Amino acid sequence: MIVILKPNIDSDSREFRRLESHVRNLQNIEMRVHKVTGAEQVLTEIYLIGNTAALSLDEMKSFPGVDHVVRISEEYRVLGRHKDDHRPNNFTYNGVNFSQDNLNIFAGLCAVDSPASVEAMMKALQEHGQVCTRMGAYKPRTSAYSFQGHGKNCLQYVFELAGKYGIKVISMEVTHESHVDEINEALAETGTPTGVMLQIGTRNTQNFELLKIVGRQQEFPVLLKRGFGITLDESLHAAEYLASEGNQKVIFGLRGMKTNIGDPHRNIVDFAHIPVVKRLTRMPVCIDPSHSVGSRSRGGDKILDIMHITAQGVIAGANMILVDFHPDPSRALVDGPQALRMDELHPFLEDVRIVRAAFKQRLRLFNENTV
Amino acid sequence: MIVILKPNIDSDSREFRRLESHVRNLQNIEMRVHKVTGAEQVLTEIYLIGNTAALSLDEMKSFPGVDHVVRISEEYRVLGRHKDDHRPNNFTYNGVNFSQDNLNIFAGLCAVDSPASVEAMMKALQEHGQVCTRMGAYKPRTSAYSFQGHGKNCLQYVFELAGKYGIKVISMEVTHESHVDEINEALAETGTPTGVMLQIGTRNTQNFELLKIVGRQQEFPVLLKRGFGITLDESLHAAEYLASEGNQKVIFGLRGMKTNIGDPHRNIVDFAHIPVVKRLTRMPVCIDPSHSVGSRSRGGDKILDIMHITAQGVIAGANMILVDFHPDPSRALVDGPQALRMDELHPFLEDVRIVRAAFKQRLRLFNENTV
Amino acid sequence: MIVILKPNIDSDSREFRRLESHVRNLQNIEMRVHKVTGAEQVLTEIYLIGNTAALSLDEMKSFPGVDHVVRISEEYRVLGRHKDDHRPNNFTYNGVNFSQDNLNIFAGLCAVDSPASVEAMMKALQEHGQVCTRMGAYKPRTSAYSFQGHGKNCLQYVFELAGKYGIKVISMEVTHESHVDEINEALAETGTPTGVMLQIGTRNTQNFELLKIVGRQQEFPVLLKRGFGITLDESLHAAEYLASEGNQKVIFGLRGMKTNIGDPHRNIVDFAHIPVVKRLTRMPVCIDPSHSVGSRSRGGDKILDIMHITAQGVIAGANMILVDFHPDPSRALVDGPQALRMDELHPFLEDVRIVRAAFKQRLRLFNENTV
Amino acid sequence: MIVILKPNIDSDSREFRRLESHVRNLQNIEMRVHKVTGAEQVLTEIYLIGNTAALSLDEMKSFPGVDHVVRISEEYRVLGRHKDDHRPNNFTYNGVNFSQDNLNIFAGLCAVDSPASVEAMMKALQEHGQVCTRMGAYKPRTSAYSFQGHGKNCLQYVFELAGKYGIKVISMEVTHESHVDEINEALAETGTPTGVMLQIGTRNTQNFELLKIVGRQQEFPVLLKRGFGITLDESLHAAEYLASEGNQKVIFGLRGMKTNIGDPHRNIVDFAHIPVVKRLTRMPVCIDPSHSVGSRSRGGDKILDIMHITAQGVIAGANMILVDFHPDPSRALVDGPQALRMDELHPFLEDVRIVRAAFKQRLRLFNENTV
Repeated sequence: MIVILKPNIDSDSREFRRLESHVRNLQNIEMRVHKVTGAEQVLTEIYLIGNTAALSLDEMKSFPGVDHVVRISEEYRVLGRHKDDHRPNNFTYNGVNFSQDNLNIFAGLCAVDSPASVEAMMKALQEHGQVCTRMGAYKPRTSAYSFQGHGKNCLQYVFELAGKYGIKVISMEVTHESHVDEINEALAETGTPTGVMLQIGTRNTQNFELLKIVGRQQEFPVLLKRGFGITLDESLHAAEYLASEGNQKVIFGLRGMKTNIGDPHRNIVDFAHIPVVKRLTRMPVCIDPSHSVGSRSRGGDKILDIMHITAQGVIAGANMILVDFHPDPSRALVDGPQALRMDELHPFLEDVRIVRAAFKQRLRLFNENTV
Repeated sequence: MIVILKPNIDSDSREFRRLESHVRNLQNIEMRVHKVTGAEQVLTEIYLIGNTAALSLDEMKSFPGVDHVVRISEEYRVLGRHKDDHRPNNFTYNGVNFSQDNLNIFAGLCAVDSPASVEAMMKALQEHGQVCTRMGAYKPRTSAYSFQGHGKNCLQYVFELAGKYGIKVISMEVTHESHVDEINEALAETGTPTGVMLQIGTRNTQNFELLKIVGRQQEFPVLLKRGFGITLDESLHAAEYLASEGNQKVIFGLRGMKTNIGDPHRNIVDFAHIPVVKRLTRMPVCIDPSHSVGSRSRGGDKILDIMHITAQGVIAGANMILVDFHPDPSRALVDGPQALRMDELHPFLEDVRIVRAAFKQRLRLFNENTV
Repeated sequence: MIVILKPNIDSDSREFRRLESHVRNLQNIEMRVHKVTGAEQVLTEIYLIGNTAALSLDEMKSFPGVDHVVRISEEYRVLGRHKDDHRPNNFTYNGVNFSQDNLNIFAGLCAVDSPASVEAMMKALQEHGQVCTRMGAYKPRTSAYSFQGHGKNCLQYVFELAGKYGIKVISMEVTHESHVDEINEALAETGTPTGVMLQIGTRNTQNFELLKIVGRQQEFPVLLKRGFGITLDESLHAAEYLASEGNQKVIFGLRGMKTNIGDPHRNIVDFAHIPVVKRLTRMPVCIDPSHSVGSRSRGGDKILDIMHITAQGVIAGANMILVDFHPDPSRALVDGPQALRMDELHPFLEDVRIVRAAFKQRLRLFNENTV
Repeated sequence: MIVILKPNIDSDSREFRRLESHVRNLQNIEMRVHKVTGAEQVLTEIYLIGNTAALSLDEMKSFPGVDHVVRISEEYRVLGRHKDDHRPNNFTYNGVNFSQDNLNIFAGLCAVDSPASVEAMMKALQEHGQVCTRMGAYKPRTSAYSFQGHGKNCLQYVFELAGKYGIKVISMEVTHESHVDEINEALAETGTPTGVMLQIGTRNTQNFELLKIVGRQQEFPVLLKRGFGITLDESLHAAEYLASEGNQKVIFGLRGMKTNIGDPHRNIVDFAHIPVVKRLTRMPVCIDPSHSVGSRSRGGDKILDIMHITAQGVIAGANMILVDFHPDPSRALVDGPQALRMDELHPFLEDVRIVRAAFKQRLRLFNENTV
């Protein structure tokens, strides 16, 4: 059961304390408090765990300060959508809003290779009005003998350059808890010129210990990518590991599933699941067309497969795009063959704009028609 | 090697006979003649099979009446795209053009159940300006004890009603060669009031004997659906069985792949392969959103998953849509849960119109930008 | 509901006619009669289809001539195992018994290429006491341009050589109904020197029209291979298409599933399903190690993977083995790389003998222990 | 390049120092030293990394103390088999030998629930002459709200009871580096009455940071389970993360692959890969029949599927079996439905004994025949 308090009620208030003391006296009921920071207000949610079947919805609603009460099922308790559940489907971080209703683009480097590449990328983004990017410092590689990313050595210059070019959020994969500490330190040393979204990759979707630790910090939002060998349901359950530890700023990432039925693409694209994730949970949905497709193939229509696949995500309501660019793909250290070039940034953004406008037209069509 | 003749040259001409007598004298070279009926002209293509490595491209080009010559690789000889290959990617049947550059919608009944349902469907289509439909008479069912379709018993009324409501092409699955005979007979008996596109379903994609027989007739075009358990490459090879027997009026259908990683959808949607099929072959590409999704689930945006997935196909350049409708889905004999209702036909068509317009905008964007 | 008559009761008997007239008077009940030819007797089974819920088991049992009565569930009606179902799990064809309790080996040519290869194979089999073989005349190939088998042209010499060397049953794939006619003709012309088991390959597992036609003839037994892209349940349902048309002499073949998680093997071996098929149905289970593995790789223990995989099938109770041999694998027209050589026939048979003996020891262990 | 020293040469010897000083002078060559503890001797292996193409095999061989030199390919450098590679395929830990040539059984509790269960299990093992077991303290669960294992709280009694009943090696999954510390502490506090094999589960196969940390300690051997959604090749590459950090005491575990084509089994059994892993690498291969099958289903032959699948592993040369038992499966906290009962331990061991004997007969057959 979730008890959502009215906007102006926090855990120091009299209303909160009265409710708390009531719950403490209940048998076999545990209580966890989450704060959800939206664009305009902070919401307090109280999760009651245990034998809640015996609790009365009406009684809980009757406490002062309570806005509404939701009885939750076993599935995706915190991040899921439940009956009569009006909890928000968005959050704000470092001035950027992430929501099931908007779209943010994270074009950037799959792997940081040099300050020059980073600066070229950031500069181009600023010129095109972008405030988000992706930058890979820690790279999980199939082979122990491949380049593993520059790690903490590149963090300072990445953050400083982000600040210089007005980038507010960098999506950055972490594969170990120490990476979060290193990111925190580098941000502190550089005066926090930017923000970071922690990215958990497909190989760690069920690395539950990492999820728990990342979930315990509530500073950084988390982009959790779907596991490439498990069902959608299992990946959504993994997201709950983050939320159950306190961090609800979670974005769910689709990046293709690993099977040869997707050939000649690197993975079989799974963006048909966008409406499914948005129906089952309150998480914004990110797509990663670069890793899904894995190549710069293009058809007779002169359009890259990566752009077609991006369009497929956006037309169905994707909320975030993670896409690989590189000033010189042939010299990229990781996944060069799938990177877009700087001169493709403008048409990429234009293409997304066209398709997002069509998506909004579709929204209007169906919301007028069905009323 | 393919020798494509100039438009006005056919197999009775002097130019043709001169070329033919030259080829007959070549060692270890076999010759097959295909006629390709486009919207405005008939093209004659001569396939030279065997030891063609020894032939000179320039010599073949020098014959009068020859338009151009293409040296083909092993892959998808007839339907594939080869270097400097300008053969058409379209054909016309019963007044309807099928092309990699346009879009035809085939809304209709997954399975014919009664004349009343058929008439309700055809009438609605005519009211919305549609001239194509799908009508299932022969239904391959997992269980031997399930309803197997009304078969030839329904053909006459289906064709008559099609004629009455101006339907020009009906897509209809066949699972045995005798079905083609039955269709021919029923058309003859009813005075050929409509046309038929023969549909080969996913369970028969590698039923090569059926493909050969259907490929030998050149009257009806063929919609070949991708096999749901094989690679894309293997399905494209299957299409060659049709073409190598003489029928090049082939449309390739994507309908989702069978694996539990697509859950909760019935199949994992594979429409990311649209640009791939259009790059590798000259076949128009059809999508089947109904069988891919398999349910009427919809999200908070009030849009059915089936419509989101249709949009994903159209935004990437799909050329044909096969979609299940039914006047009363709850009483449909097959796949009722995935059928759209009659009052959803208008918004469905509107939605497709919005997305197709966006696709055309995308085409302009990339063709202006990259020149 | 299945009414199994006593061994000495057939459809001309008084008992049968009395029962028949009773059933004819029942409302909404259809009656089908199957004859099952076992090693020692002929059993008559009467399938009652329709509203059988209203029938009394006891009343049906009380008719003279009735041995026992089984109420069947929807699943695998004819070939499945139902509660209190004592129908046989074996049949005899041309003197060879096929059963869930024994093991037959079909070593032979994947594709017939020449009389010399066929004779070398048959001769070697006779020298090793074998009376069964596999011989491929009709070969379904991924590409329309690959060798498609010698077809009916090779049948006569294959059958004559089989007769010469005492081969009683040849497993032979058919991909079209006309192949059954051709086989019948060739057998007639050669004086029926041998028997044929019709093999339906993995590409035709859901070619239901072929299954129905092959199921309608009751002369030849049928080996139905599992579909490589569908669930086990769906493949077992396909077997019912054969049985529902009258042919219960069906063997179910496991041959690996098509997915890259089986790499470097050609398919992922699925022989763990042997006990599952034997639990759910009454069909003997065949394994095809050659197509599962697809290569002659061997490990440090000097044992070919094909032999290890064969052993895995036999130790879990496989009843039939289909395995590719060739007098000169490097010159085989189809699948040469996976064929065993003639000098490997002896160790192959020895290996199977060792493992089958161990399987029988296991049977004794568990049947003594659990009583 | 790997330089393997003679058995009596270690890193303090004159021979070693002479070789070391030579290598230190080489350009662009890095040197890593591994010690491999076998049953009877300690081997020193020197890995030369970098521009080794320029080195002469003969020159390296000519140094005193050098036994042989192996030039390695990119694939599985440390654990792989290379041309003329005679490095050992076995190691000894706490008196137990693990090898590609023998078989160890680890029957035990999937999840530790109570001291009583642990003691019942250990006692039964001792009575049947077993010295290894599995005991799950840290359980990765799909849902954040499921029982996650007793963790460090149970370690002391598990280790003490192991000591009491003569258990020498406990296989125990770890999902975070802190678990290794906790295991070390609990062993120290209880006087190291037993040994531990660290198990990395299928969800962490590509948790490279965990692999690196576990690879850096050389006390405990590691059982790395195959990732259930990646190729075999990728899982073997993951094993190199352990070895490249210094720990070569690695066993590779097959436990089934996650896909619905394995239904009704929990996973599709992949034990056909046993000979493949033994061919490509020097790792002993473990099988986990319990998690592959996931149920106590049994056929008409009264044999549990779990036992049939175990037999399939053993007949093809498996070197270790991980199998779930429980004194009272209906009360097990995790995976009770797949656990065997105490009275099934004896027949299980007998069954394995029968099949292992058959495997040895097979070995003799092929090693006599092919010489």
